[in-house]
Amino acid sequence: MESVQLIHGEGGKYTETLIRDIFYEEFKNDILLKNGDSALLDIPSNKIAFTTDSFVVNPIFFRGGDIGKLAVCGTINDLTACGAEALYLSSSFIIEEGFLMQDLKKIARSMKDTCKQAKVNIVTGDTKVVPKGKVDKVFINTSGVGIVKNYFSNKIEKGDRVIVTGTVGEHGTAIAVDRYNLKVKGRIESDCAPLNSILDCLQGYYGSIKFMRDATRGGIGQILNEIANQSELGLHIFESKIPISNEVKSINEMLGINPLYLACEGRMVLVVDKYDSEDIVKVLVKEFNCDNASIIGEFTDEYEFVYIENDFGGKRILGSLDTQILPRIC
Amino acid sequence: MESVQLIHGEGGKYTETLIRDIFYEEFKNDILLKNGDSALLDIPSNKIAFTTDSFVVNPIFFRGGDIGKLAVCGTINDLTACGAEALYLSSSFIIEEGFLMQDLKKIARSMKDTCKQAKVNIVTGDTKVVPKGKVDKVFINTSGVGIVKNYFSNKIEKGDRVIVTGTVGEHGTAIAVDRYNLKVKGRIESDCAPLNSILDCLQGYYGSIKFMRDATRGGIGQILNEIANQSELGLHIFESKIPISNEVKSINEMLGINPLYLACEGRMVLVVDKYDSEDIVKVLVKEFNCDNASIIGEFTDEYEFVYIENDFGGKRILGSLDTQILPRIC
Repeated sequence: MESVQLIHGEGGKYTETLIRDIFYEEFKNDILLKNGDSALLDIPSNKIAFTTDSFVVNPIFFRGGDIGKLAVCGTINDLTACGAEALYLSSSFIIEEGFLMQDLKKIARSMKDTCKQAKVNIVTGDTKVVPKGKVDKVFINTSGVGIVKNYFSNKIEKGDRVIVTGTVGEHGTAIAVDRYNLKVKGRIESDCAPLNSILDCLQGYYGSIKFMRDATRGGIGQILNEIANQSELGLHIFESKIPISNEVKSINEMLGINPLYLACEGRMVLVVDKYDSEDIVKVLVKEFNCDNASIIGEFTDEYEFVYIENDFGGKRILGSLDTQILPRIC
Repeated sequence: MESVQLIHGEGGKYTETLIRDIFYEEFKNDILLKNGDSALLDIPSNKIAFTTDSFVVNPIFFRGGDIGKLAVCGTINDLTACGAEALYLSSSFIIEEGFLMQDLKKIARSMKDTCKQAKVNIVTGDTKVVPKGKVDKVFINTSGVGIVKNYFSNKIEKGDRVIVTGTVGEHGTAIAVDRYNLKVKGRIESDCAPLNSILDCLQGYYGSIKFMRDATRGGIGQILNEIANQSELGLHIFESKIPISNEVKSINEMLGINPLYLACEGRMVLVVDKYDSEDIVKVLVKEFNCDNASIIGEFTDEYEFVYIENDFGGKRILGSLDTQILPRIC
């Protein structure tokens, strides 16, 4: 079977062919095809958001997605979290010598499909090939630019609510299941998805949204700690309100992992004014990928950490992530 | 000695510490420090250039630079080549478990110094850590955004001249010498440098510049072929006019490599109107890193490929790069 060779990374004829046959073929759009060393963009705003992420996930194909879909979603979601409408992405591949051309094609196709769904374009890229053993299969960097629609930077206050837009821990669990070949019953799939449509649907509530962040590495556990830390308030989380599937619960019990620290790749955490919080959830549940959106906690001035309370009144501190749980999750 | 561990990539406390102590410490600027998931930029133009490049050079420290300097220069030069003023960079690191903290610091310091020299800022970033053996030491992606000052897209015509802004093949030769531990006499160093000041100094000649490209992978040999191909004209190169050091010549003779295909990392190739070509060279030679700028050839309609003529009238075709010469050059 045809595979990527070192010469595909030398910058000559073979590089041109690889780029044309795989990347241009899948990603094609007017800006990309006119691309010299840079994409030339006409952006009708002076307020630009700019972000970057490298993806090293293992395995590269997993239930619910692959490294390509993940790379597109990750950068779109980072822009969205900052209140920016995602417009343009770059994609930069580092490929191991011998990597199958058909797998590369599959990844590029998946990036194209996700871009189409999210209405963004890949407009510039780069391709490197390194000798066998010098990289594990393929790593992808995506960077992105978008137009800032709103800065979510109001001060978090006592009483503000925390919303999570869907069930947690699914991406991390899916990766663990596929990486370690776990035999599991029930449906478990990565939640990997572009969340940019959230920005539009929440437009009427921008004034009430104080913070927004996609819960990737470190999961909601880490984010909740970061928010509590920045706000100098405490955060009271109701365990029973956290949307989580039985599959995720039981697999992670088996693995000894707290799923609250596992990466999601299609979930946003929001802090909102309490008066609009119920309405925001009502709007969110109608949105793509957000049907389990839920208020999971509220800010308090009684302490300065994250407390999690179960249905029986038992409370424990949910600390910042300080142990190694699952490397190469994204 | 302290080294990077997998937990530094988990997204928790250790990731925060690594980012703060190394990247924020070196790169610090108002935009970076306010960064959430994205940098928020105020760009006083609607014409934006956007580019990306991943760097996998081996060795990571080499005579005349390191992977960090290279990563900053590469992206700045890509923006410059498209007529854009480089403004903001992202930097995304993929680090091998066990990589020395002091080497990471050294690389970050070198990126900072190069940014300072070029007057650009790193405003957003990402850090991943992968297990030992899954990446070779460290790979860096930089993406960049800038303001488009001019599109160099006039039609290339018969008589137009080709300029190269300095001696060629030095980066590739320096990498080969350090990678293979060659014992060489004389000074050989990578030409790695940011070329963004060229845009300003050539401002009076924008109308005469038809093409600009930094000669990286594939060297000037590959670029000259790409230009000839696009222009549907032939290109007559005078071998004796190509600025090249004796060290580069003799080392590559020994290696059996044609240095015209070796990467430069601080050289631009320009196509300019013949009437302004001498004046443009006069301006360039006064500029940082361009003191050996030279007219090396002219376009002709007598054939449609790249001919290279030596001082004795001997001619040969300089083809597009189709063999493997030196992987992981950038």
